[in-house]
Amino acid sequence: MSETTKADITRRRFLERAGQGLAVSGALGPLVSRAAAQNVPEPPGRKLGWAIVGLGNLSINQILPAFAKCEKSRVVAFVSGHPDKANKLAPRYGVDPKRIYNYENYDTLKDNPEVDVVYVVLPNSMHAEYTIRALKAGKHVLCEKPMANTPADCQAMIDAAGQAGRKLMIAYRCRYEPFNQEMIRMAREQELGPVKVVLADHGFSIGDPTQWRLKKAMAGGGSLMDIGIYSLQAARYVTGEEPVELTAMSYTTPGDERFKEVEETIDFQLRFPSGVLASCSSSYGYSGQNRYRVVTAKGWFELEPATSYSGLRMFVHKGNATEERILPVRDHFALEMDHMSECVMSGKDPLTPGEGGLRDIKIMMAIYEAAKSGKTVKV
Amino acid sequence: MSETTKADITRRRFLERAGQGLAVSGALGPLVSRAAAQNVPEPPGRKLGWAIVGLGNLSINQILPAFAKCEKSRVVAFVSGHPDKANKLAPRYGVDPKRIYNYENYDTLKDNPEVDVVYVVLPNSMHAEYTIRALKAGKHVLCEKPMANTPADCQAMIDAAGQAGRKLMIAYRCRYEPFNQEMIRMAREQELGPVKVVLADHGFSIGDPTQWRLKKAMAGGGSLMDIGIYSLQAARYVTGEEPVELTAMSYTTPGDERFKEVEETIDFQLRFPSGVLASCSSSYGYSGQNRYRVVTAKGWFELEPATSYSGLRMFVHKGNATEERILPVRDHFALEMDHMSECVMSGKDPLTPGEGGLRDIKIMMAIYEAAKSGKTVKV
Repeated sequence: MSETTKADITRRRFLERAGQGLAVSGALGPLVSRAAAQNVPEPPGRKLGWAIVGLGNLSINQILPAFAKCEKSRVVAFVSGHPDKANKLAPRYGVDPKRIYNYENYDTLKDNPEVDVVYVVLPNSMHAEYTIRALKAGKHVLCEKPMANTPADCQAMIDAAGQAGRKLMIAYRCRYEPFNQEMIRMAREQELGPVKVVLADHGFSIGDPTQWRLKKAMAGGGSLMDIGIYSLQAARYVTGEEPVELTAMSYTTPGDERFKEVEETIDFQLRFPSGVLASCSSSYGYSGQNRYRVVTAKGWFELEPATSYSGLRMFVHKGNATEERILPVRDHFALEMDHMSECVMSGKDPLTPGEGGLRDIKIMMAIYEAAKSGKTVKV
Repeated sequence: MSETTKADITRRRFLERAGQGLAVSGALGPLVSRAAAQNVPEPPGRKLGWAIVGLGNLSINQILPAFAKCEKSRVVAFVSGHPDKANKLAPRYGVDPKRIYNYENYDTLKDNPEVDVVYVVLPNSMHAEYTIRALKAGKHVLCEKPMANTPADCQAMIDAAGQAGRKLMIAYRCRYEPFNQEMIRMAREQELGPVKVVLADHGFSIGDPTQWRLKKAMAGGGSLMDIGIYSLQAARYVTGEEPVELTAMSYTTPGDERFKEVEETIDFQLRFPSGVLASCSSSYGYSGQNRYRVVTAKGWFELEPATSYSGLRMFVHKGNATEERILPVRDHFALEMDHMSECVMSGKDPLTPGEGGLRDIKIMMAIYEAAKSGKTVKV
C-alpha cells in the first residue's frame, strides 16, 4: 500500500455515527464537499501535465472530471480520432485547442514538454501500440486495464518502458481508494485472523451488441477481461499472493447476439500458496454484481459494491454482529493519477506497475485454458 | 413445492411495514407468538406418532421442541444408546418411559402401533442401517441428510422402502419453509427473468475435534457432506435442474487437528442443462457463511442467512434498489415433519424423497472426484 494513500484511510468510523444524528450519506457528504471547496495549496512540486488518449465514456464521465480533485495532475492535451469531440471538451477542461492530437500525429507528443504523462484509455487491443509509442516519445504512461490482449504485448510494453527509462503504470484504480485499501489492510494485518477464502463476484448486463468490448480482436476476450478482472484483482491484492493453480467454467447463451465472439459468463477458482482459495465469478449476462467477501475463522469483511466508481460500502462481521465501516469517499481516478504523478516526480515505482498487469493477463489466459480444457491449470 | 406449505407464503411483505411504525422484528414477533398462543383445532385426521432415533444436539435443541408447533405429528418414542438422556427428556415431551428403545431392541418398534414414523437423526454412517430396520419394522422413515455415505447405501434404503411399501423422505428442511420456497418460486416463475447464476456459500468454524463429523468412517466426508450440501441443494432446488458437470477445488490446513480425516474447505462449480452455472463454497474452517444469491439479467434475490434454523432474511434487488422481503417465520422442523405425516396420511409422495438424497450423494462423490483429479467430472 502506498504511503501517500495509506495515511488517507480513516479507520473504524462505524455506523454508530448515524446514531449521533447523522444519516450515513450526510456523514460523508460534508467531508466531500468541504474538500472540494477548500483552497487546496499547490503541492511542493508542480502539477504534471497529462494527455488523455481516447475520449470514450470512461474519459468523458470519469477521468476528465477527476482532474478537478487532483493535486499533482492536470490535463493539458487530448488524443482522439474525433476532433469534434475533442474540440467540444477542450474549453470545459482548459485544454489549448493546439494540444489536440490525433492518432497520426500522436508521436509528435515528444515535442510537447508540457505533457509528462500519457493516459491510454483505448480499446484493449490498442493499449500496447499507444503505450509503446508514448514511451518512445519520452512520456510516462498510465494504461487502462486489462494491460493488453496477450502476455507478449504486455512484455513489449514493459521492455519499452525500461528502454525509455520511463514509468509504466496500469490503472488498477481500486488499489488507490480507501475502501479496498482497508480490505487489504485488514487481510494483511489479520485483524480477524488469517484469511481462509475470498468470494468475489463481478458482472453486469452489457448493452449495445456493436461495442468494441464484444469484439474478440479488440477486447481480447469477454467479461473476464473487462469485469472479471476485478474479481481476480481482489483475490490477488487481498491475499498479497499469486495463484498457483486454477479451475474455471464458462457459459455463453446460444443465439444471444451480444456474445457471437466473446464469452458471457466465466466462473473460476484460484488456489494461493498459503492455502487460501478464491471462488470468483464474472459475467456480461447478469444484473450488476459487484462484491467480494473475505472470510476468516473469526468473521468476515466485505465490500458491496466493491469496485464501482463510487458508492462503495464496507461491512464487517465478528462475534454475532455485522457493522458497516464508514470510510472517506474519494475520487478513485484522482487518487490513481496523483499516485502516478507522485511516482514520476519522486522517482518511486508505481504500486501497480506493468509487471502486475502482465501477471493478470497470464492468469486470465490460464482461466480461459481451464474453462476450455475442463482441467486444473497451473500458473 | 408442496401445496400445503405454498399457501403459507405471504408474498411481498416488504420492509415498508417498518415505515408504518413497526420494527422488523416487532412485525413478525406478534404473528409468531399469537400462533403459539392460539388453541389450534386438531386437523381432520389424527396426529401421527413419531419415534426419534438419536438424541444428539439436533434432536434436543431443534427437533423435539418443534413438535409443539406440529399439527399432524407428535413424539411418542425415543431410540437412544443413552437411557439417562432419554429418561430425562421423556417427561418434558410426554413420552411414556416404556416407549424408550435402544439400538438392540430397536426392531421391536414393529410391535408398537403408536409409532407411525421414525426420524433417523444419527451419524451419517448409521443412516442406512437404521432406516432399513425401521422400514422392515413397517414404519415410515424421515432420515436426516446426507442420506448416507455411499450411493449403494442410498439405493438399499430406497429399495427397502419400496419392498416395505412405506414412505422414505430425506430431511431437507429448507424445502419446507417460506423463505427458501419464495426463492424457488421467484426463480421458477422467472419474476426477474431467467436465472443466470446461483452463488452459494455455506460454512462454519467447527469445534470439538473429537466429534463424529470429523471421522471419515462416520461422516463419509468433511464440510461438503455436512454444510456444503446446503449450497448444492440450493443450486438444485432453485433451478429445478440436475447438474451435468462440475469442477472443484479443496484445501485443508496442514496440522489442524480437526482435519486429520476429512476435508476442511471445498469449493465447486456446477453446470446445469439450461446453461445456468452455480458457484458454491463449503467449509468447516471459517466463520459462519450461510447465503445464496440468484442472479438474472434484471436483478438478483438472495437469502442471508439462507439455511440457518431461524433468522432468515431475504433481499431482492431490481432497478437501482434493494428491498428486504419479509415473510412468515416458521419452524422448519415442524413444517417438514408435518409434511411427512401428511404424506403418510394421504398417500402422497414426499417432496424430498430418497431419490433426491441419492442424487446429492452421487453429486458429492463427483465433487470429491473433481477436487482430487483436478478435472471436470460429468454427472
